[in-house]
Amino acid sequence: MRGGSFRRLLDERSRIAGTYLCVGLDPDLERLPADLPRSPDGVRAFMLRVIEATHDLAACYKPNLAFFEALGPEGWRVLADTLAAIPPDVPVIAAAKRGDVGNTARAYAHALFGVYGFTCATVSPYLGCDSVAPFLDHAGCSVLLLARTSNPSAAEFQNLEIGGMPLYLHVVTVSQAWEHADRIGYVAGATAPKELAAIREAAPDATLLVPGVGEQRGDADAVVRLGAAAGGGGLAVNVSRSILYAGRGGDFATRARDAARHYAGLLERRA
Amino acid sequence: MRGGSFRRLLDERSRIAGTYLCVGLDPDLERLPADLPRSPDGVRAFMLRVIEATHDLAACYKPNLAFFEALGPEGWRVLADTLAAIPPDVPVIAAAKRGDVGNTARAYAHALFGVYGFTCATVSPYLGCDSVAPFLDHAGCSVLLLARTSNPSAAEFQNLEIGGMPLYLHVVTVSQAWEHADRIGYVAGATAPKELAAIREAAPDATLLVPGVGEQRGDADAVVRLGAAAGGGGLAVNVSRSILYAGRGGDFATRARDAARHYAGLLERRA
Repeated sequence: MRGGSFRRLLDERSRIAGTYLCVGLDPDLERLPADLPRSPDGVRAFMLRVIEATHDLAACYKPNLAFFEALGPEGWRVLADTLAAIPPDVPVIAAAKRGDVGNTARAYAHALFGVYGFTCATVSPYLGCDSVAPFLDHAGCSVLLLARTSNPSAAEFQNLEIGGMPLYLHVVTVSQAWEHADRIGYVAGATAPKELAAIREAAPDATLLVPGVGEQRGDADAVVRLGAAAGGGGLAVNVSRSILYAGRGGDFATRARDAARHYAGLLERRA
Repeated sequence: MRGGSFRRLLDERSRIAGTYLCVGLDPDLERLPADLPRSPDGVRAFMLRVIEATHDLAACYKPNLAFFEALGPEGWRVLADTLAAIPPDVPVIAAAKRGDVGNTARAYAHALFGVYGFTCATVSPYLGCDSVAPFLDHAGCSVLLLARTSNPSAAEFQNLEIGGMPLYLHVVTVSQAWEHADRIGYVAGATAPKELAAIREAAPDATLLVPGVGEQRGDADAVVRLGAAAGGGGLAVNVSRSILYAGRGGDFATRARDAARHYAGLLERRA
């Protein structure tokens, strides 16, 4: 496990790097650089070179478990090697969106925090508090609950009005009263700035993970202005594909670094 | 991939086996039979012997991915070996509860249906239709959307009233209008029989997966009466721990078989 609590590490790191940039690691076999083999070994090489080229520019990384799972059993060794390549002062979020009944949630929490050494994971709120508690039983570890996601159909259920308040805000206000709420943050998509502002207002100090800048074209300025907590911390803004696939030729690592520098600047942390 | 569509295979198999029993495969390292090593190899031996002892009594199996993931990379090889041990006429559901944005959902669907050969997976509805569609792009494959789960805090969000209708029923009615709705079923916990009945009424022909019989003490008779579709199909009732851990001594496989026979009888399919 990386030292200290996830939130403290994230705030320290984003201050030092001067940015809220979270580099999302979504290694799609179909989009690997042309000269790497389309295999788990190719993905490992891709991840290690991207991390080498970007780690000084990133506030955190977010490996997306789906893309490692899709590689078969060997994909999980690639994940472990990817995690080992990330410097210990850079926090890492498991893009997992797990959410299950208590004893199963306990197994997922053990896998992510105990076996792989993450200190933060995205979790779905649909099953309520006892599906989240097993993750928070791991001292210092955080969860980021899905509140308002960045995908086109996000509003279909998340914006349903319940007694005048949309579901995504119910998720935030209800979970802020759960045990260990200081280690519960939220996913709030950059594609829905009004909702992002409402989430920040409902949870002034919580960590927010904001996807949707980059290929999904959310507004970086608005995200930084609306998303940071008082004091300037509590924010990670994810960019995945626009960095990973900035180049597909032999210079892919340089192109990834250039793209990371571009987004790190757009997502500058001033406070 | 197992032959034909998941739903047709499930209905054929439950008719032949004369039961709605779904045997849940949740191999918790802490609860392995005493004479098996607490390791991936021990889990593999456990799974193979349980399947050997129960496959003629089961309408389907449901491996719970959390418990394989918790074993580290080798756990996914154990999962593949477990799947290979299940006879091809017995359908298999991935207890996965995945739910993510489009390109990530596509990776999860590829992993579960393409790499591991499942033909059905549980999926969370929280992100709406575009998080589910990539699973249904796999011909013949089904998803089981979480509607009303069996855990103690399930009602916290799922029973919130939206214009007079609880969220879990919104999930059912809205998703019944999505493309390929004939391959969308629902998870409806045995611990909430009123909600189970409402889900069956809202989706008369859909496949229902009902957890919560066994250790969670749902009423098997009520589940069969309320859960089966007209004609007697469209139902799988999961029992995991009460079968897997019926015995922890050298006779664990015999005890698992006895427990499976007990539950297969309680969950008899008559039509």
